[in-house]
Amino acid sequence: MTIFSKIIKGDIPSYRIAENELFYAFLDIFPLVKGHTLIVPKVEIDKFFDLEDDLLREWLVFAKPIAQAIERVIPCNRVGISVVGLEVPHAHMHLVPVNSADDLNFTRPKLKLSPEEFREVQESIVAGL
Amino acid sequence: MTIFSKIIKGDIPSYRIAENELFYAFLDIFPLVKGHTLIVPKVEIDKFFDLEDDLLREWLVFAKPIAQAIERVIPCNRVGISVVGLEVPHAHMHLVPVNSADDLNFTRPKLKLSPEEFREVQESIVAGL
Repeated sequence: MTIFSKIIKGDIPSYRIAENELFYAFLDIFPLVKGHTLIVPKVEIDKFFDLEDDLLREWLVFAKPIAQAIERVIPCNRVGISVVGLEVPHAHMHLVPVNSADDLNFTRPKLKLSPEEFREVQESIVAGL
Repeated sequence: MTIFSKIIKGDIPSYRIAENELFYAFLDIFPLVKGHTLIVPKVEIDKFFDLEDDLLREWLVFAKPIAQAIERVIPCNRVGISVVGLEVPHAHMHLVPVNSADDLNFTRPKLKLSPEEFREVQESIVAGL
């Protein structure tokens, strides 16, 4: 079972943003910037483009209100998307509020936030949904 | 009219990969790596998440065979996705064959390819479709 499946199952705690029958969204605990959110499908598939068309059709429609909530509550130009997937063998999409291309540069150091800061970001995004 | 609309219309030449009634895919002329492809909707909307749900539903299904063709013909671990959109006010998605997170780092210098190299990449991806 991947770390994301354990998070979805609740065996590992997460700062949950949204969920439906197909997807689970939560704060990345190694954020590039405040508001950095992950979306994972509940099915455990490694490569993003190996996912079934029916799931791919629903992905961006699930992501849209989350991205719009992030954009409302986190100061940014817009919310960007990144799918890389070299570390965890469970397809996932990063939603990241960006002001420059460097905000989506995964080679740069990640932020360290306290649990209080994570909860504050979580609550503000959930309230913006 | 954005530069992408001019490309779609054919007023600016491009290395076309695929097209349907909603989307146009072509090689990025400032590629991070060989095979770097852009997908743009034919409708001219700035922000990705301002696009209508009906269009978002079709986006990844259009992207999937292109990503799979890139993965077949360009040596890589997998094909990643990036949506930033700070430079051209016309929503677009980057499909980039990745071997490391740095392959999706837009702050690094872009490749310079000759027209012959672009055509070779274009032909190999189109043949892989």
